[in-house]
Amino acid sequence: MSIIGTKAAAEINNKVVILAAGEGKRLRTKKKNETKAQIKVYGLSLIQRAILSAKKAGLSNFIVVVGYKKEILVSHLKKLSKIHDLNIEIVENPQWEKGNGTSVYACHDLIKGNFFILMCDHLFDPSILTELSKNNLPENGAILAIDKNIDKVFDLGDATKVQDQDGSIIRIGKNLKSFNAVDTGIFFCTPTIFAALENAFSERKHSLSDGIARIINLDKMKAYDIGNKFWLDIDTEKSLKYAKRALLSQLNKISEDGFISRFVNRPISKRISVMLSYFPISPNIITIISFVTGLMAAFMFIKGNYFFTLFAGLLVQLSSIIDGCDGEIARLKFQGTPFGAWFDTILDRYVDTAISIGIGYSFWLTHPGVLPWIGCILALVGFILTSYLKKEYFRRYFEEMPKSFIRTLIKRDIRLFVIFMGAIINKPYWALISIGIISHIGIGWSFLEIYFRKNHSRRM
Amino acid sequence: MSIIGTKAAAEINNKVVILAAGEGKRLRTKKKNETKAQIKVYGLSLIQRAILSAKKAGLSNFIVVVGYKKEILVSHLKKLSKIHDLNIEIVENPQWEKGNGTSVYACHDLIKGNFFILMCDHLFDPSILTELSKNNLPENGAILAIDKNIDKVFDLGDATKVQDQDGSIIRIGKNLKSFNAVDTGIFFCTPTIFAALENAFSERKHSLSDGIARIINLDKMKAYDIGNKFWLDIDTEKSLKYAKRALLSQLNKISEDGFISRFVNRPISKRISVMLSYFPISPNIITIISFVTGLMAAFMFIKGNYFFTLFAGLLVQLSSIIDGCDGEIARLKFQGTPFGAWFDTILDRYVDTAISIGIGYSFWLTHPGVLPWIGCILALVGFILTSYLKKEYFRRYFEEMPKSFIRTLIKRDIRLFVIFMGAIINKPYWALISIGIISHIGIGWSFLEIYFRKNHSRRM
Repeated sequence: MSIIGTKAAAEINNKVVILAAGEGKRLRTKKKNETKAQIKVYGLSLIQRAILSAKKAGLSNFIVVVGYKKEILVSHLKKLSKIHDLNIEIVENPQWEKGNGTSVYACHDLIKGNFFILMCDHLFDPSILTELSKNNLPENGAILAIDKNIDKVFDLGDATKVQDQDGSIIRIGKNLKSFNAVDTGIFFCTPTIFAALENAFSERKHSLSDGIARIINLDKMKAYDIGNKFWLDIDTEKSLKYAKRALLSQLNKISEDGFISRFVNRPISKRISVMLSYFPISPNIITIISFVTGLMAAFMFIKGNYFFTLFAGLLVQLSSIIDGCDGEIARLKFQGTPFGAWFDTILDRYVDTAISIGIGYSFWLTHPGVLPWIGCILALVGFILTSYLKKEYFRRYFEEMPKSFIRTLIKRDIRLFVIFMGAIINKPYWALISIGIISHIGIGWSFLEIYFRKNHSRRM
Repeated sequence: MSIIGTKAAAEINNKVVILAAGEGKRLRTKKKNETKAQIKVYGLSLIQRAILSAKKAGLSNFIVVVGYKKEILVSHLKKLSKIHDLNIEIVENPQWEKGNGTSVYACHDLIKGNFFILMCDHLFDPSILTELSKNNLPENGAILAIDKNIDKVFDLGDATKVQDQDGSIIRIGKNLKSFNAVDTGIFFCTPTIFAALENAFSERKHSLSDGIARIINLDKMKAYDIGNKFWLDIDTEKSLKYAKRALLSQLNKISEDGFISRFVNRPISKRISVMLSYFPISPNIITIISFVTGLMAAFMFIKGNYFFTLFAGLLVQLSSIIDGCDGEIARLKFQGTPFGAWFDTILDRYVDTAISIGIGYSFWLTHPGVLPWIGCILALVGFILTSYLKKEYFRRYFEEMPKSFIRTLIKRDIRLFVIFMGAIINKPYWALISIGIISHIGIGWSFLEIYFRKNHSRRM
């Protein structure tokens, strides 16, 4: 597991209005005592995901507008407020059936400054909110986050379309014929929206889009293009399934995963993570399970016979796979912490140590003497320093170490896989030594590479 | 060696005028073909120090005003420009004897925007320039860096005094009777200074202070208080000696040095560094010398008899002492690089490894079996992970790990000193094991401490 930048962005004080009053006819939950907002995706309800995404973006004051089956939803919200230590105000909208504009309007007494509007049934990348909040709100206007990748929008027919011109929105509606973007349901508004909605209501129009149309007429409606960031409106059973797949596919860490991680470990670990997501198991517990699995592997190596060695090898690979699950669960369930990432990294090094000792010991049983131990120590130090090198680089250069082929070869997923393979052919010690030698070559290579790349040679 | 933040501050484009035209009567150099600006302090000339300090603050365009013995100084400047890859313009001031105002004025054709003025014979902390440049220059005015710690000014009698009122300078002069600060000789100016100097010249006043006095009259002269930052005007033989002591005393890294570093290693390493500073030896070479000394220590341990063990222990301590010199030289001579700090840190871990293997081997000679090796591996891993823990913490939390008593106990200076002591009493293995056990306790303690301090327990 490895998460960078889980530090919440600087606290933004704006309130967040979440619209959760509607019935959601197209996606009925199977349980009677549950609203659409409570449908769970990997252990978290849709509204919980909306709230936690906003929290991750640094927002902390929530107003949830309820209507349909409000008692049931309110009791769910009370639970969430307790679990996540959140400030959630509840606003009832008895007129919810008229349109979602009435739900926004229902909050007008509670809101003084600028605020965000979110939909309870939309998934979105928290960085959309962070970026949106950096835009300057037009005076007496609003900004809508829009998606210009129309081809990739899941259910375009049902989406609210938007025509954007040089960063200003000039038309909005479900049935626009000409449009170049889609409304993501994420708004950043001044309180002007309430006057705009009153104006729309006076013409018996009650949707939020009707209010927005009034702001467009005043030329005060800006657009923020989210680029390739993820969002999804969950309206149907089909989109719910798509959401699950989309969240899973985001778990691959394309920039960091080694070859084995990507093609062997992730496909398995993601399945395990999905299963685990339905239970209240924290990522740190999974870190400990991976650690214990690694220690067990080390003990199995000690026995020395092929049966145990093979079993040990399998446990090594299993530990490597489970090592991916803690990060996956953390990302799936908004449970990532710097502590978790730090703790996991250190325990990984202890597992490397235990496995090396186990393999060294079993080899020493048949090859007594000092050399097996020295080889074992050097290999182990190579493993640890390969990783150490990168951390120290980050601390000195304030950036991640550049990628290089040789460093890709000695990533942990590959190291452990080589040991697993070594166990299969009953040569775990030689697998250990080989990968150890490559590690030291990689370290030496890194010195040369960085020395010349950073052009320090001129100053030496 | 350990240097954080040697990355130059964001490039500031302002030019830097360095006044080096004067004779410096009170501090005559002993060599005939040398000006005052060329007097060396720890291998670098005074003007070289001024230039490199400004470079470290992110400044890169220099104008040096020459006058007295100009040919000699110019040839020195050409050398500097080559060695440090710098852009140095030379301006001759034939009127230099009239006063240093004429030297500033001599640059007026070369300067369009705002610029800095420095004295060639002043040492100063580069962060003074960084901070000064963050101040808003008053329109048609200037800012002078001032020192309010009057009691600590080295040669107060000769200093230019200043009276500051709420951040504005209201009087300046060598003979002020009432004053509350001292002129550090570091200015940040708009080109207005040239008109002010012309005005002063018309009244036959030719010092920079006379020009500044005109800006004061227009109420456009601001002050920037440098606080406790270091600066020193080198005017006499006495102040030169004081400068050398002051630079040395800055080499202690009070925030980072462990107990042994501070009271045993630094006093010795500083003397070695002073000697080395006169030779063209780069910090990276010293890193390698410390590394080789450590490897030699490891080989000495292998022999196993008391004489060699004692010698090995001495080499361990010597390696630890030399390990301080690379950073000291780097700071004394502006040679610090992130590469150097990174390289040094990794080589230190290899030395730790070699010493542990050496000690483990010698113990195994008299205590054959597997346990000596397992103990040795665990101790070594404890050493490396103690350090690894901190790097990974920095990467996850974007801040240095908080200090704690137990982590102070297992710093490298102390670890190596314990091994040195162990060698003296001929028990290096037990010294290794003891400090290894404490290392692992320290790591476990760190987990608990950070877990509860960061309050992640609520989320687990």
